[in-house]
Amino acid sequence: MKIAGISGSLRKHSMHRGILRTVAQHLESKGIEFVDVEIGDFPLYNQDVNAAGIPVVVQNAHDVLATADAFVIASPEYNYSISGVLKNALDWFSRIENHAFNGKALSIMGASPGLGTARSQYHLRQVLVFLNAFVVNKPEVMISQANGKFDEQGNLTDESTIEFLDKALTSLINLSNQLNS
Amino acid sequence: MKIAGISGSLRKHSMHRGILRTVAQHLESKGIEFVDVEIGDFPLYNQDVNAAGIPVVVQNAHDVLATADAFVIASPEYNYSISGVLKNALDWFSRIENHAFNGKALSIMGASPGLGTARSQYHLRQVLVFLNAFVVNKPEVMISQANGKFDEQGNLTDESTIEFLDKALTSLINLSNQLNS
Amino acid sequence: MKIAGISGSLRKHSMHRGILRTVAQHLESKGIEFVDVEIGDFPLYNQDVNAAGIPVVVQNAHDVLATADAFVIASPEYNYSISGVLKNALDWFSRIENHAFNGKALSIMGASPGLGTARSQYHLRQVLVFLNAFVVNKPEVMISQANGKFDEQGNLTDESTIEFLDKALTSLINLSNQLNS
Amino acid sequence: MKIAGISGSLRKHSMHRGILRTVAQHLESKGIEFVDVEIGDFPLYNQDVNAAGIPVVVQNAHDVLATADAFVIASPEYNYSISGVLKNALDWFSRIENHAFNGKALSIMGASPGLGTARSQYHLRQVLVFLNAFVVNKPEVMISQANGKFDEQGNLTDESTIEFLDKALTSLINLSNQLNS
Repeated sequence: MKIAGISGSLRKHSMHRGILRTVAQHLESKGIEFVDVEIGDFPLYNQDVNAAGIPVVVQNAHDVLATADAFVIASPEYNYSISGVLKNALDWFSRIENHAFNGKALSIMGASPGLGTARSQYHLRQVLVFLNAFVVNKPEVMISQANGKFDEQGNLTDESTIEFLDKALTSLINLSNQLNS
Repeated sequence: MKIAGISGSLRKHSMHRGILRTVAQHLESKGIEFVDVEIGDFPLYNQDVNAAGIPVVVQNAHDVLATADAFVIASPEYNYSISGVLKNALDWFSRIENHAFNGKALSIMGASPGLGTARSQYHLRQVLVFLNAFVVNKPEVMISQANGKFDEQGNLTDESTIEFLDKALTSLINLSNQLNS
Repeated sequence: MKIAGISGSLRKHSMHRGILRTVAQHLESKGIEFVDVEIGDFPLYNQDVNAAGIPVVVQNAHDVLATADAFVIASPEYNYSISGVLKNALDWFSRIENHAFNGKALSIMGASPGLGTARSQYHLRQVLVFLNAFVVNKPEVMISQANGKFDEQGNLTDESTIEFLDKALTSLINLSNQLNS
Repeated sequence: MKIAGISGSLRKHSMHRGILRTVAQHLESKGIEFVDVEIGDFPLYNQDVNAAGIPVVVQNAHDVLATADAFVIASPEYNYSISGVLKNALDWFSRIENHAFNGKALSIMGASPGLGTARSQYHLRQVLVFLNAFVVNKPEVMISQANGKFDEQGNLTDESTIEFLDKALTSLINLSNQLNS
């Protein structure tokens, strides 16, 4: 099994990049490969550009996604929805024939000083209906009051949250196994 | 009164650019100024970049928005939500102190071959709660079965839809007047 | 000015009934009349019943709503949405010609042990688009970690939250005044 | 395999009851048992009543649900959300320990004169996250322009829609089999 991760935040010390590092460590300890897919150099989606072909940077990212059995999307909440950066990447990926998310299991993770990105996660779930991904229902990963749980480099340091992510990954792996059966 | 418009689609012959051209014509006939704000050359939002200051291209666009009394956002629906392009622009605008949308009236318009962007418009409404814009409730502008209603240059040609947009703008103007009272 | 309140919870010592009692006290101190509308004895909505006429208990409740200039809806969150009890009442009210919510200002308030009903409030906002009510954007009233903020009779006892509700009511009154101008 | 259905509309000649009759016929032809669960005689949810025990009429309905491997919920859209009647039933069912929906596959179906209940279905999906049901992504069953597709008794008569429901049920059965593997 192989799992790919996407961060909806581009800043270097993002908590969401930190979440994916913790995810990578958990998966490594389970013998599962993890790969991080960068979306920060994608152009803004433009159907005229798309008509001329998928940009190389998008296609390369998607080629990596296509090797994965399941996905983790970690996105900040901006303005009560997912980041435009993430949405832009998904808009591109959705234009690729037989895109990587189709029929696969996916886990949504988020952290914020307030409600832990609760408002945005249902937007992402609606997007993923169109992409035909199956999102883990329980547990939902909404890391609230996040300021004290990450260090300045965006590393997740809160022990109970680290353990909680492991539980969430078990749910993702189980759902992926069910869907692949 | 002055109204600013934003298209969530970047393609040249976009139906959503066409909607804004019809909006401009209606407003001109009412003696109301209309200004179109382009968001296609914005960088992807990055908090590290933001920390160094709002990019000039974003600030210039916002300077224009800030002269408006009310807004029209015309966005395609991609993957059951608003375009990443539009969300990226709103993510930037929201970081500007005393941003232009605060307390203002706004009309959402969309067109699609299917349901007329119905699924995405409630996402945009949720975003606009955070931005404290007040969105017209009635009429909702969801131009369904849109393929036959626009020409190849994206011009709205369907007479009843053109008239309908005029009615929608009257609602926008009325709401703006109420909020400014 | 007169404001009507609806509780989406039927239990006697409901926190949401308690919220409305605090609302009533604040409004009284401002010289604004408050009236509480009970929805707990409504039948389940049935279009066949509706075809025979609006039930008396619904009509009586609506007659009271119709005397109000603005509204407060306080609803618990059940299963990530508003209560079925509240939705049932709104389904009935919406069938009354020239229903009371049309064009009026409304404030949503909620309390829960977790996120303060954040997930459900955007569902209610979507419902209120159809009913053409204008919902206060700021402040949103989501009383999180509510267990320690109410007593066993459901009375709101947390001083800062009590003050916060007063601020929220000022927003409601201002919006109502704007819409009535 | 056994599949249970719930109609969110109570009227006798409801299109949504008609959808469930077509579902029953399709399933019969596949040798799959179908059972219809009535929710029209449930009391309004009240936590005080709940504290005294689940009402018999709710428990009996749930006993039937608990025998099913998968579910079809057919609900009208009222005021841009699911019916209060359906939400009330789900509010009750969710209070039963080890409720029937947990971990099971579910298909949402709806019909309306307009957009085919598109606005409400994502509300129901959010509710079902809490209930930990897994909802079929494709195809979505939104029967638009429904007036000409059902007869006066609410029977689905449109041949292509009847065939489409069969396809939707195949997706439900496949998802159920995956989840049970």
